[in-house]
Amino acid sequence: MTVPPADRRRIVLLTEGHSEPVAGKTASCILRYCGDRVVALLDSTQAGRTAGDVFGVGGGIPVVGRLADAGAADELVIGIAPQGGRIPPSWRPVLCEAIDRGMRIVSGLHDFLGDDPELVAAAAARGVELRDVRRNDEREVSHRQGLREDCLRILTIGQDCSVGKMVAAVEIVRGLARRGVDAKFVATGQTGIMIEGDGCPIDRVISDFVNGAVEKQVLAHQHRDVLVVEGQASITHPRYSAVSTGLLHGCMPHGMILVYEAGRTHHMGMPHCPLPSLERVIAAYEHLAEFGGGGRVIAVAINSRLLTSAAAAAERDRVRRTLGLPAADPVRDGCDELVAAVESLRGVLPSPAADGGSA
Amino acid sequence: MTVPPADRRRIVLLTEGHSEPVAGKTASCILRYCGDRVVALLDSTQAGRTAGDVFGVGGGIPVVGRLADAGAADELVIGIAPQGGRIPPSWRPVLCEAIDRGMRIVSGLHDFLGDDPELVAAAAARGVELRDVRRNDEREVSHRQGLREDCLRILTIGQDCSVGKMVAAVEIVRGLARRGVDAKFVATGQTGIMIEGDGCPIDRVISDFVNGAVEKQVLAHQHRDVLVVEGQASITHPRYSAVSTGLLHGCMPHGMILVYEAGRTHHMGMPHCPLPSLERVIAAYEHLAEFGGGGRVIAVAINSRLLTSAAAAAERDRVRRTLGLPAADPVRDGCDELVAAVESLRGVLPSPAADGGSA
Repeated sequence: MTVPPADRRRIVLLTEGHSEPVAGKTASCILRYCGDRVVALLDSTQAGRTAGDVFGVGGGIPVVGRLADAGAADELVIGIAPQGGRIPPSWRPVLCEAIDRGMRIVSGLHDFLGDDPELVAAAAARGVELRDVRRNDEREVSHRQGLREDCLRILTIGQDCSVGKMVAAVEIVRGLARRGVDAKFVATGQTGIMIEGDGCPIDRVISDFVNGAVEKQVLAHQHRDVLVVEGQASITHPRYSAVSTGLLHGCMPHGMILVYEAGRTHHMGMPHCPLPSLERVIAAYEHLAEFGGGGRVIAVAINSRLLTSAAAAAERDRVRRTLGLPAADPVRDGCDELVAAVESLRGVLPSPAADGGSA
Repeated sequence: MTVPPADRRRIVLLTEGHSEPVAGKTASCILRYCGDRVVALLDSTQAGRTAGDVFGVGGGIPVVGRLADAGAADELVIGIAPQGGRIPPSWRPVLCEAIDRGMRIVSGLHDFLGDDPELVAAAAARGVELRDVRRNDEREVSHRQGLREDCLRILTIGQDCSVGKMVAAVEIVRGLARRGVDAKFVATGQTGIMIEGDGCPIDRVISDFVNGAVEKQVLAHQHRDVLVVEGQASITHPRYSAVSTGLLHGCMPHGMILVYEAGRTHHMGMPHCPLPSLERVIAAYEHLAEFGGGGRVIAVAINSRLLTSAAAAAERDRVRRTLGLPAADPVRDGCDELVAAVESLRGVLPSPAADGGSA
């Protein structure tokens, strides 16, 4: 069968049993940025509701209990990340049914669909593609050569996982584009790659090649005026600091945007590990950045989804006052203040010889 | 055929064209710590010389130009790391010849022998094992739970790659053992694993699981009194800071030993990247260690191989004076001063309830 091009595929999002914003953050972000292509969510525990009901985004897109109820679709996207990144046995029937219907399957799990003999055989028999977004063969170390200093590199960094680093990066790129700046979102995680259509799943790269894989992304896109690189976890995170440090030194940011979720007190999934303060996270990042790029934190993106409007406004004031930095919730407040911080930094870059400068 | 147990295997070290201490650091370390099992070095460009001549260690072990000249042996160990970690085509004939002679092949390359159809077929036909030391299936994140605080964790850290972090760790463990301390070398690189017989090749682990893989090593061995964990690269290294940070936060050291090579001015293989000062490396490590373990740098291991005896003594004095830390070249001076620094730190650990304490 002929599969339509990526930007015209009709998507069913598999969120079985996890239609909520944290476990289902892939689904949530696809609803936010590619919602016009999503025909249904598949979650038998929430059938009859809408995406807007269960995710707060996606409006009237229906949640269905069976693939047969979803209407015509070309692609099944696994929208949730089960513990350990493995494919739960209970998903097999629906994956097989989707293949049988000729749908492409897209997965960001650590367990690859393409390594599963049953799914591979079924897909081959039906002529269907299994797309594992995290699969990569990165084998290049960083070289620290050939970086253009007239392309502004911004990295979103975090106090923890799943705080909104990808959303902040995408929103800043969109805000820059609205001002006529040729900006590019550099995706470094599976959801970002699904949305942007390119990027590198750096948490799946062999550790020796993480810095190099990130540098390769920068080199590939530095003909743009601004690159906003999607951050991962935190260099202070007990589990994932390797990923975050490789990202920092691989992209050598000129500036960083700190992202956090207001009200979160401990690392997600680690109730025995309190979060370090924002001040300590900033100090750690700026210290390690001295060994690559020398960038500073230039603004704060607040994820205030757990707060009332009044509490969010108070939190924003508190952060501006205590950290002395521009601060905004990119979803609630819009991105103007964060975009302005990026543009200010852009003003101090060296002018490119060819086009007369960006200052 | 029956292969003898690991500690009785007779080894030929393949060092073709690279019989020198940096490119051949695997060979050099195996000569140093398993030299009694090495029957020959295989390097047609140096045939007729001895290991002592070309590596400064290994005494009269002969360098031969052909496998047939090596005498009876059970195992061919690839003792050098070619650029990019790939198997040079020129090695194929000797690998095939070794297989044909029934020798086990041991490799620490990123390119796996076991993924090479020609070698796999030859090994299967001859009943020979291909051992890829870097192969792993680490898929566990760190949990930060269950660590015993009465087991002292020491990490060797570095200003750069290939400065002697493994040698320092092994020498300190041997020094502790001579004083009756139940210490264990925790290998984290291919050469260390070849020498110790266990460990985890963390630079080959998927980045999401680096911290967890290191923690797993600690949990497996913390019934010992002291663990000395082999460091990798540096958290300040342009290429490999991801690996080093995961190692730091995965093992949460109580104390760190800084290792550097006197006279080196730039990162190895990166002549455009000057090394940060020792003070800056220490400050960066102690800062990031605040987010895991809280350890401080307690001593400095100097690799003074490029210096005369007089210059080495002067360097040692300079480091002691400027950094205010115990300092010694573990190879040239012996390890007493570094071991004493570890024992001092051990004295301030909590006493284990069961055996009456280690203080």
